[in-house]
Amino acid sequence: MRIARVAHPQGMSFGVVEGDPGAGGGTTVAEIEGHPFGEITFTGQRWALEDVRLMSPILPSKVVCVGRNYAAHAAEHGAEVPQEPLLFLKPSTSIIGPGDAIRIPKAFTKQVEHEAELAVVIGASGARRLTREGARRAIFGYTCANDVTARDLQAKDGQWTRAKGFDSFCPIGPWIDTTINVDDVEIRCEVNDEVRQLGRTSDMVFDVYALVSYISHIMTLLPGDVILTGTPEGVEPIVAGDKVSVSVQGIGTLTNQVIDLD
Amino acid sequence: MRIARVAHPQGMSFGVVEGDPGAGGGTTVAEIEGHPFGEITFTGQRWALEDVRLMSPILPSKVVCVGRNYAAHAAEHGAEVPQEPLLFLKPSTSIIGPGDAIRIPKAFTKQVEHEAELAVVIGASGARRLTREGARRAIFGYTCANDVTARDLQAKDGQWTRAKGFDSFCPIGPWIDTTINVDDVEIRCEVNDEVRQLGRTSDMVFDVYALVSYISHIMTLLPGDVILTGTPEGVEPIVAGDKVSVSVQGIGTLTNQVIDLD
Repeated sequence: MRIARVAHPQGMSFGVVEGDPGAGGGTTVAEIEGHPFGEITFTGQRWALEDVRLMSPILPSKVVCVGRNYAAHAAEHGAEVPQEPLLFLKPSTSIIGPGDAIRIPKAFTKQVEHEAELAVVIGASGARRLTREGARRAIFGYTCANDVTARDLQAKDGQWTRAKGFDSFCPIGPWIDTTINVDDVEIRCEVNDEVRQLGRTSDMVFDVYALVSYISHIMTLLPGDVILTGTPEGVEPIVAGDKVSVSVQGIGTLTNQVIDLD
Repeated sequence: MRIARVAHPQGMSFGVVEGDPGAGGGTTVAEIEGHPFGEITFTGQRWALEDVRLMSPILPSKVVCVGRNYAAHAAEHGAEVPQEPLLFLKPSTSIIGPGDAIRIPKAFTKQVEHEAELAVVIGASGARRLTREGARRAIFGYTCANDVTARDLQAKDGQWTRAKGFDSFCPIGPWIDTTINVDDVEIRCEVNDEVRQLGRTSDMVFDVYALVSYISHIMTLLPGDVILTGTPEGVEPIVAGDKVSVSVQGIGTLTNQVIDLD
């Protein structure tokens, strides 16, 4: 099942995406009552997908990210794969949805790069000190994410908070897929329709269940919290005017334009 | 004015602390309606301070922290004072209130230390791309904080997220003082009534207005967001059984016991 959060003439709602958006035509969003965690109740309201605006599919309390979780990407920065997951945080204010603009803060950085990632969304039970099996049950679903990074500031600051924390530096979407198996799916990043990153989740150093279990022993994950699971090799600069698309096979495509922040 | 968040027999409320808790006797908490941002309306309900439980005075969407903001503390770790504020984040799940236990995750760390800090709380207008003067107006008030840190993990990980992000590693309180001038007040940390840290806010490299302005150009600060402004020298280990108190002159004292997390 695919859960979207949509803006429509009457306000904002969660909804279930019905039909195959990739196949074109006939895709609708069926509004649900309240939050999508737990049992779903439909309101009966339906919109054509093109008549609503997709928002970031969730507004998490926190975004926990994992660095160097693909060996080939670690190598392209001359870094080794860590013995344990390397964690950092992006502020929730960095989140934007599909179609929102990634804004380059030119006053601070001359080199902003895309990082295509699989994102995990935590379900209603949250996650605290879970086993691998418990982690599997705590996952609500998956979406696409772009861990936008000011590479020059990342190198300069040591701590990655500023480099990865600017407003608009965490596009997520287009929706949360609650049924997909992500053990071995393709992750792709295209800039202006040119492929820049192409990896597979099976190449992760720590898989999603290991990550959720590990993080849950350090910090409690609340319902809706998002985990970015690392990026494969091929990160490259993006500039104003670019169109960046992150696709995870079986989920969909998250597309954002890049503009300069004046 | 001092704003507390209290648990009482009927639930949880914000309230105004009336009288001088330090002087003992007669201190009350006057309940207010809803949130303390904006105009305050009293409900008429009052409790003696000793009849309610003080909670963390705010539940922020994020906690933005500043590293190496006192030259003498940077020096004790062999680090230089940065040219710009060095930012990192603590997850909101690390927040606890006065009297809550700091829980040492023994499975991960053998060296947990206190860091006494002045905390800034952002007001109802939030803060985005503010001047120094705008930052001054955006501040709702101040409280005490303890930026609890697993020093061994901080050194090992490079990124400080894990070392500073465990549940219970961000005590704040006891209340928010909305009128104090913090340009030159004493910050003190006592462990089992022995003074460990003693500094003055006038020794900050970047003062609170500079910090709020700077951060607001990187990430939007939402109402209630908390900024930890760095710690003076004298950080030392804490272990199970210790009682840790952070005091900011003119605000009050935040006390927490330390226990082991099994």
